[in-house]
Amino acid sequence: MLSKIRSLLEITDFTVEEIDELVALAMDIIANPKKYADVCKSKKLATLFYEPSTRTRLSFTAAMMELGGNVLGFSDAAASSVSKGEVVADTVRVVENFADIIAMRHNKEGAPWVASQYASIPIINAGDGGHCHPTQTLADMLTIYRHKGRFSDLTVGFCGDLLYGRTVHSLTKAMGRYRGIQFVFVSPDELRIPDYLRRDIDKKGYQYYETDKLEEAMPRLDILYMTRVQKERFDSEEQYDRLKDSFILDMPKLRHAKDDIIILHPLPRVNEIAYEVDAHPGALYFEQVRNGKFIRMALIYTLLKWAEEGRRPTSSANLVEASPCGNPRCISTVEKVPAIYTVHADGTRHCIYCDALEGSQPSHIP
Amino acid sequence: MLSKIRSLLEITDFTVEEIDELVALAMDIIANPKKYADVCKSKKLATLFYEPSTRTRLSFTAAMMELGGNVLGFSDAAASSVSKGEVVADTVRVVENFADIIAMRHNKEGAPWVASQYASIPIINAGDGGHCHPTQTLADMLTIYRHKGRFSDLTVGFCGDLLYGRTVHSLTKAMGRYRGIQFVFVSPDELRIPDYLRRDIDKKGYQYYETDKLEEAMPRLDILYMTRVQKERFDSEEQYDRLKDSFILDMPKLRHAKDDIIILHPLPRVNEIAYEVDAHPGALYFEQVRNGKFIRMALIYTLLKWAEEGRRPTSSANLVEASPCGNPRCISTVEKVPAIYTVHADGTRHCIYCDALEGSQPSHIP
Amino acid sequence: MLSKIRSLLEITDFTVEEIDELVALAMDIIANPKKYADVCKSKKLATLFYEPSTRTRLSFTAAMMELGGNVLGFSDAAASSVSKGEVVADTVRVVENFADIIAMRHNKEGAPWVASQYASIPIINAGDGGHCHPTQTLADMLTIYRHKGRFSDLTVGFCGDLLYGRTVHSLTKAMGRYRGIQFVFVSPDELRIPDYLRRDIDKKGYQYYETDKLEEAMPRLDILYMTRVQKERFDSEEQYDRLKDSFILDMPKLRHAKDDIIILHPLPRVNEIAYEVDAHPGALYFEQVRNGKFIRMALIYTLLKWAEEGRRPTSSANLVEASPCGNPRCISTVEKVPAIYTVHADGTRHCIYCDALEGSQPSHIP
Repeated sequence: MLSKIRSLLEITDFTVEEIDELVALAMDIIANPKKYADVCKSKKLATLFYEPSTRTRLSFTAAMMELGGNVLGFSDAAASSVSKGEVVADTVRVVENFADIIAMRHNKEGAPWVASQYASIPIINAGDGGHCHPTQTLADMLTIYRHKGRFSDLTVGFCGDLLYGRTVHSLTKAMGRYRGIQFVFVSPDELRIPDYLRRDIDKKGYQYYETDKLEEAMPRLDILYMTRVQKERFDSEEQYDRLKDSFILDMPKLRHAKDDIIILHPLPRVNEIAYEVDAHPGALYFEQVRNGKFIRMALIYTLLKWAEEGRRPTSSANLVEASPCGNPRCISTVEKVPAIYTVHADGTRHCIYCDALEGSQPSHIP
Repeated sequence: MLSKIRSLLEITDFTVEEIDELVALAMDIIANPKKYADVCKSKKLATLFYEPSTRTRLSFTAAMMELGGNVLGFSDAAASSVSKGEVVADTVRVVENFADIIAMRHNKEGAPWVASQYASIPIINAGDGGHCHPTQTLADMLTIYRHKGRFSDLTVGFCGDLLYGRTVHSLTKAMGRYRGIQFVFVSPDELRIPDYLRRDIDKKGYQYYETDKLEEAMPRLDILYMTRVQKERFDSEEQYDRLKDSFILDMPKLRHAKDDIIILHPLPRVNEIAYEVDAHPGALYFEQVRNGKFIRMALIYTLLKWAEEGRRPTSSANLVEASPCGNPRCISTVEKVPAIYTVHADGTRHCIYCDALEGSQPSHIP
Repeated sequence: MLSKIRSLLEITDFTVEEIDELVALAMDIIANPKKYADVCKSKKLATLFYEPSTRTRLSFTAAMMELGGNVLGFSDAAASSVSKGEVVADTVRVVENFADIIAMRHNKEGAPWVASQYASIPIINAGDGGHCHPTQTLADMLTIYRHKGRFSDLTVGFCGDLLYGRTVHSLTKAMGRYRGIQFVFVSPDELRIPDYLRRDIDKKGYQYYETDKLEEAMPRLDILYMTRVQKERFDSEEQYDRLKDSFILDMPKLRHAKDDIIILHPLPRVNEIAYEVDAHPGALYFEQVRNGKFIRMALIYTLLKWAEEGRRPTSSANLVEASPCGNPRCISTVEKVPAIYTVHADGTRHCIYCDALEGSQPSHIP
């Protein structure tokens, strides 16, 4: 049970070298857009969005159009008709007749992984529940590369909701693979990075520290990654009111920042970045959107090329079957798929669909 | 009141010769896709889906794109804005300004027929309630042709819900026109083929027999067409539980089948074909999807060509006006259209929109 | 705070000369469609429809496709994901990365105006609440031009709901700028043109008279513009029943019309034009739809050309800040935007977003 074709399900599916290649290709697309204007002529992208995400869907759509290709799919409720009692495995074997590559957004974690096992065309995970959203991470990385010229020797601050923010977890894993990276995690106590990530970081020996004071962290940061702090994450409204201002970025807080700090945000923002910050030369969240389009162009083009070349995924994963996954958001809880786990180097087993630790109780899964 | 242009509203709108032509064209498209990659350049298909049907909509969309054309339309709720108090006759006279051909899905039976009377461009019925779905039948036929090489001298079994399954009725009418066809209808007693179809088959002298035992029928079949048996069709849950397994296809039931049996299903399946059957060389339901795209390409191309040539529908139908149709799902019950009936050779009169027998009571219409 | 780029937010954003140019271009597109079949190749239109309007959306889509361009966007509920707590200003700065021009439909008045202040690409107002719908007015004008050959020396009758009918207000403003125009306003007393429009007409010295008798007005009309009279606009059902027939156009009422009268309607119609009228040679409401597509082609092409040339909006508007707008449908009531007013020649101040008079009470705004 392993796909015969290269897909992008989570950011670490691509090696550091492959990400470097992808970024280099995106840079060439930015420099020479006309060169790529027809490279996907007569190719079709299917955008299968089981839950709405207009921004991501439009980004994929624009990307495919700028490569000269066509786009078809569904964007929300219409999905009910596809999924009406139909398993993901059947849906992709239907849709692969209509398209050359699929971008799938699903509310269940691991659904794109299941799709990749049955499809004869590449699958791109366009967000699966709170699990992964690798093309957002690629957009973040292209933005960093365009402004810093490197992925190494950087101090990266994350601020806001670090417990549920999948973009934070994913960028941490992606950047941690380069040398000289330091992380600063700025959050209220309730929303610190999840245990599994802290263990993972510790194990890999990344340098990091945690704080709840953005001002204090500010002077060290090369990159500040803001995320939204949602009121409903807090135990009480008082607590929220007491804390929220500490995690709102405004010009006074930026006073002690490096001159060349860059500010990222996955958007949409609500109030966590004051509008006055938009004029700061390092405020790159709208450019990040543009870079998201360019890196998706590079990704679609690359996966289609690999599919044509017959390049196969290499996996040294040690897989075992075990009892069903305890994560209520895992695709395995709604569709009949075998309960398979990856055995990590430390002996722990993680659900192949949603990465939850074997035997986790729902209440312990963020 | 007869359209000036050729449309496809039900499968028998096309003669046997025209279907042969269409299948031959689809075979050429499959063999030489590049030859057709631009034949609909600057043409537009409007997909007017008043109820969602993602699979069918994506099939039409992919078909038009592979012919080099463009696609626009609506897929569900958005329809409310078109249809907000607006009759189908007005809607098509609006949309014909935006497209060259229309594929219409509607919950009311006969709506595409009404559309065809007002439009100056071809209408394809993409499913009107429980009435007709001719492009599904064309997909079935292309699949049969690709694997059997002929439409004659075949034994065709239908299994499951034969009362409400419009794909069954339509394929029966289509295949019955060829010589040497035998039908086997396998269903629970509650879901046998409707009386009107049995009368029609008797009148035309087709060979058939009915049974409720799939195993018994199996050895004779060249083609097995599976359909879904829905729990809600049964009088009681006990009855459903007692019967359902008899109409589920699994490997043991296939043991006594011919070696070259082919298995069709209009999809989506729920549980009426066990997943183990997917590996059977005759399991063609996913190929059927692919063939659906190819035959729709042939159909769109053909109807556009006929429209350009000014080919007109030939009809020797004997039409009369009478009292309003009694079928609550007929378009004539929601829009003011004249109550017109076709007089058949045996003197019976059938609503021109939904084919219901004149004077039928709603309770007698399946 | 003034956009650096030309947009079309209300009909008077274009001078009489610019509208003449646009109409001339549309006439050339009609005569030589092939000449324009690729002029927008590799350009993209984003249709941001925060509320559904299938007819208008399909018209923009078809227009862009006939210019060789691509279309992406959303059509209704999906919008919730874009707008989920996100202000219009942020949304357009996202979407401008995916498209070259935006057509925006919004339920809040003035939303396209806000968009135009932040976007670096042209914005077309595709309808903002009950406020403006300038491309409908352009469709009306092209239809008048094709059949009358001029915009001057015409008597234009409007019939139906003249209080809420934004197409009426907009066409009045647009046609009033030509010489020799006379208006006849035919409506029940409850639905006469709004005070602000009557004041505006008086001030500009246009010739007009008001009546509640369509038959009486008929003989003078060169153009009859019908609109729908909605039951819910009346104080009582009796009143509606008593009045409704007076504002339904049928063949008897047309008996005393000029031979070359033309009949317009923005569609969809419900019952305000009898179906028998469709056969009248002056019944142009379906041609109006077609003209809507052609004038949108001219508009998209023109705005993209102006954007490339860097043509900037010229505004001599006298702007002042004041207290928040009292119109509950104004975009300024749901998003934090500065309360800005245009000072008219007579000293009155009008909200820059929704045109409401400063200090208006909600109950006085139609």
